[in-house]
Amino acid sequence: MFESAEIGHAIDKETYDAEVPALREALLEAQFELKQQARFPVIVLINGIEGAGKGETVKLLNEWMDPRLIEVRTFDQQTDEELARPPAWRYWRALPAKGRIGVFFGNWYSQMLQGRVHGQFKDAVLDQAIRGAERLEEMLCDEGALIFKFWFHLSKKQMKARLKALKDDPLHSWRISPLDWQQSQTYDRFVRFGERVLRQTSRDYAPWHVIEGVDPHYRSLAVGRILLEGLQAALKVQHAPVHQANIAPLGQSIDQRSLLGSLDMTLRLDKNDYQEQLITEQARLAGLLRDKRMRRHALVAVFEGNDAAGKGGAIRRVAAALDPRQYRIVPIAAPTEEERAQPYLWRFWRHVPARGKFTVFDRSWYGRVLVERVEGFCSQADWMRAYGEINDFEEQLTSAGVVLVKFWLSIDEQTQLERFKEREQIPFKRFKITEEDWRNREKWGLYAEAVGDMVDRTSTEIAPWTLVEANDKRWARVKVLRTINDALEAAFRKDKK
Amino acid sequence: MFESAEIGHAIDKETYDAEVPALREALLEAQFELKQQARFPVIVLINGIEGAGKGETVKLLNEWMDPRLIEVRTFDQQTDEELARPPAWRYWRALPAKGRIGVFFGNWYSQMLQGRVHGQFKDAVLDQAIRGAERLEEMLCDEGALIFKFWFHLSKKQMKARLKALKDDPLHSWRISPLDWQQSQTYDRFVRFGERVLRQTSRDYAPWHVIEGVDPHYRSLAVGRILLEGLQAALKVQHAPVHQANIAPLGQSIDQRSLLGSLDMTLRLDKNDYQEQLITEQARLAGLLRDKRMRRHALVAVFEGNDAAGKGGAIRRVAAALDPRQYRIVPIAAPTEEERAQPYLWRFWRHVPARGKFTVFDRSWYGRVLVERVEGFCSQADWMRAYGEINDFEEQLTSAGVVLVKFWLSIDEQTQLERFKEREQIPFKRFKITEEDWRNREKWGLYAEAVGDMVDRTSTEIAPWTLVEANDKRWARVKVLRTINDALEAAFRKDKK
Repeated sequence: MFESAEIGHAIDKETYDAEVPALREALLEAQFELKQQARFPVIVLINGIEGAGKGETVKLLNEWMDPRLIEVRTFDQQTDEELARPPAWRYWRALPAKGRIGVFFGNWYSQMLQGRVHGQFKDAVLDQAIRGAERLEEMLCDEGALIFKFWFHLSKKQMKARLKALKDDPLHSWRISPLDWQQSQTYDRFVRFGERVLRQTSRDYAPWHVIEGVDPHYRSLAVGRILLEGLQAALKVQHAPVHQANIAPLGQSIDQRSLLGSLDMTLRLDKNDYQEQLITEQARLAGLLRDKRMRRHALVAVFEGNDAAGKGGAIRRVAAALDPRQYRIVPIAAPTEEERAQPYLWRFWRHVPARGKFTVFDRSWYGRVLVERVEGFCSQADWMRAYGEINDFEEQLTSAGVVLVKFWLSIDEQTQLERFKEREQIPFKRFKITEEDWRNREKWGLYAEAVGDMVDRTSTEIAPWTLVEANDKRWARVKVLRTINDALEAAFRKDKK
Repeated sequence: MFESAEIGHAIDKETYDAEVPALREALLEAQFELKQQARFPVIVLINGIEGAGKGETVKLLNEWMDPRLIEVRTFDQQTDEELARPPAWRYWRALPAKGRIGVFFGNWYSQMLQGRVHGQFKDAVLDQAIRGAERLEEMLCDEGALIFKFWFHLSKKQMKARLKALKDDPLHSWRISPLDWQQSQTYDRFVRFGERVLRQTSRDYAPWHVIEGVDPHYRSLAVGRILLEGLQAALKVQHAPVHQANIAPLGQSIDQRSLLGSLDMTLRLDKNDYQEQLITEQARLAGLLRDKRMRRHALVAVFEGNDAAGKGGAIRRVAAALDPRQYRIVPIAAPTEEERAQPYLWRFWRHVPARGKFTVFDRSWYGRVLVERVEGFCSQADWMRAYGEINDFEEQLTSAGVVLVKFWLSIDEQTQLERFKEREQIPFKRFKITEEDWRNREKWGLYAEAVGDMVDRTSTEIAPWTLVEANDKRWARVKVLRTINDALEAAFRKDKK
C-alpha cells in the first residue's frame, strides 16, 4: 500500500516554481466558488507518519488559499465536556458548514491508530472503529460533503533522517514529535496498522491519497493538485452526489394487517389507579435519576406520535417527577439556517446530553422517515438511508452509556378528531392546532405506513421502540414513565455484571 | 430591604386553589404568545436563602407552564472549557433565544455572593462585580430581554426550622444544602452582602422581587403573578423598550481636521526592507505564541478598514507566521438566524478564544458603529449604546488575560479606486468586488466620521486602536505584525510584575 510512496518522489525547484502560481490561482478560484455555492462542505483528513510534512503542508495550503475560509482543527486532549459524551461528539461539533473547508488533524483515524499501536486494544476493536469511520464518512458524503484523506508517508529510513534534521534545526526543534516516534518499534506497528486501516477505508466516495513526504515540492504539488481536481469536479456537479439510482421500494403489507392496527386501543386506566401508579412511577424515576449509578449513564427519551396524541402531556408528567435542573427538553421544529448548513443529524448531536444528564426530545431525528418522507421534504434516497444512519447514531449513543427510550404515541382517527375540535374550543390550547394539523390528517394512511417501516427498521435491541396506546391519556402517561424506569433499571443491572 | 419578607406572608389553601387554574391558563397563554412573537427572550434569575423554596418554585413553574419552552440552567462547577475563558462566557452560551424562557440558578449573583461571604475578596471587588452585573443586565434589556430577578427570603429562624424539617423528611433529605448554611455565621453574612447587592442592582428595567419563602402557597402565587404581569406588559409593547428618547447627536468636527485626515498616507517600505522586516516580525510572532507565558493569555486581533484596504492580505501575513493549528480566523458576515435571536454581542462571544489560543476577527463587533450606523441597519439608540457595551465587552476580555489588538486599515479614495479596478480585472479577485463596494464608496465621508467617533470612544488603555496607513500594503503588513508583537510582549512583561 505504501510502496510507491517510498521511491523518492521529487520535483525540482524550477518545475515547482513554474507550476505553483497557476495552481494557487485555481485553488483560490475554486475556494470562492465553493463559498458562493455554499452547497457542500469540504473535510480534509490529515494522517500519516511523524515528520512527513503534515503540518508544513497544511500551513502551505493556508498560505495558498484564503485562510478565512479554512478551519483547522486539532483533536488532542479531550475536554471534560467532550469526555462526558460519545467519542464522535467532538468531531460533529467541529464539522465545517457548507461552503467551508475543515482540516482535521488528529481525527478518528489517529485516535484508533494510537490506541492499537499502544496496545490499548486488539484488531477486533480496531476493526470496529474502522467500520464506525466508514459509516461516518459514507453518511457525510451522502449528505454532500467532499472528503479528502491524506496519508503522509516516509520509509523508516527517511523518517529517522527527517526527525534528526528537525531536531538539529533550532527553528523547528520545538515541534519535534514525542520520543516515542524515534523508536523503530512504533514506526513498524504504525505502518502495519495504518495499512490495515487504509485498506479497509479507501472507498470510491472517500479514497485515501498516500503522499510521499520527503520532498516538500513534491508533496505540496501533489496535495494541491488532488485538492484542486476534487474541488473542481465537485463544483461542476449540479446536485450533491447521492446514491439515487435503483432504490427498490420497501415492501407493502400484503394482507390487511399493520403494526399500529394490532395495538389494543381500548387499554385504559381509571382515575384512582392512574393517580396511584403515576405517583409511584414518578417517585421511582426521581430515585433512579438521583442514583449514584446514573453518573455512568445519560438518559435520552424520544417522543414521537400522531398529532394530538398527548406528547406534551406525557412529557410534562415525566418532567413533574424531577427537579428542573436535571433535565432539558428539546423541541424539534424546522432546522435553523446553521443547522441546514450541516448534515441532518448535526442538530441532534448538538443536544446529546453529558453523562448524568437527561434530555427529552419532543420530536426527533425520526422526522426524516416520518414527516419528511410523507411530505416529500427529502428524496426517497435520503429517507431510505436515514434508517441505517439513525441506527448508527443510536449505537454510538448507547455504546457511550446513554439509555435511549423511544415512544410512538398512537391514537385512532376518531380520537384525534375529537381532540382537534377540543383544542379549537379552549383558548389556551388554540396555539396547539393549525391548518397543517388538519392537512396531515388526510395522509393518515401514509403516516401509518411510515411508522410501520420506521419501527421495523429502527427498533433494535439497544434502542427498542415502545408503542404507546394513547387513546387514554392516563394509560399512556403511566406506560411512558414505567418504560423509562424499566430501561434505567435494566441498564443499572447490566453495570453490575 | 428584607423586612417585609419576614412577616409571615401566607395564603390559605382555598384561596390558592381558587386562583391557580386561571393563573396557569394565563401563564400558558402568555408563554405561547411569547413564542409566537419571538421578539424577546425572558431571563429569570433565582437567588436567595437556602431552604426558601427556590427549587420547588422553579419546579412548579415548569408544571404550570409548558416546560418545552423553558430552559433551566445551573452554573455550579465550571467546565475546563469555561475556565479557559472570561467568566461571563458561560452565561452568554446559555442565554435563551427570543421567544424562550431561561431560568438561571446559580447565576452571576450567586457567584459574587459566595465569593464575598467566604472571604475570597472584599467589598471593593464585590462592588466591581455588581457594576459588571448591572451593565450586563442593562445591555440585555436594551436588546429587548425581559429580566425577572427573584430573591427567595427566610428569616434566620425560619431558615433553621426549614432546614431541619427538610433533613427529617426522607424524601427531601438528599437535597439538604451544605452544612455551611446551618451555621448562623453564613446566614448573617449572606443577608448582609445580599442586601448590598440588591440595593445596588435593583433598577427600573430589572428590579428585584423579594419573596418570602416560608409558605409555599404564598411564594408560588407571588412569583406566578409577577411573571404573568411582566410577561403580559412586555407582550403588549409593540417594540422592544429602548432608551430611544432624547439622544444628543455626537458633536461633529468644527474645523476641517479629522483623525483619519491626520494620518501620513505616504508612509511606505521598499521591497528589501519589507522582506527583511516581515520575516523578522513573523519569526517574533511565532516565538511569542510558543512562549510558555502565552498559556496565561489569549490573543484577539480585530481587523477593520476601508474596503480594499488590504485586510485579507494583512491577515494572511499574520497567519503565514504560524502553525494553522494555533489560530482561528472568524470572518464576520451577516448574522445567522440563531445569531439574530440573541443580543448583538452573542455572535462574538461564541468565538472568544480559550487561553493559549489566537483568534483573528475579519471585521468584528465594530460593525454596529460602522456599517450598521452608516447604512441605518440599526437605530441611533442602538449604535450609540454600542460604544459602552463594546468597552464593557473588551474589558471583560482583557481582565481575563486576553491581549486585544484592533486595527483600522486606512487608504485614501484614489487608492481604493485603483484597487477596485484591479479587482475587476483579475479573475481570481473578481469575487472580492461587488456592487455594494461601489455604493459604499459614495458614503466615504459618513464612514470617515463613523471611524473617527469609533476610535474616540473605544480606543482605550486596555484595548487601543491602531490606525494603519495602508496605501502601501508592505508598510501596513509590517505595522500590523509589529503591533501584535509589541502588545504580546507588553502583556508578558506585565505578568512578571
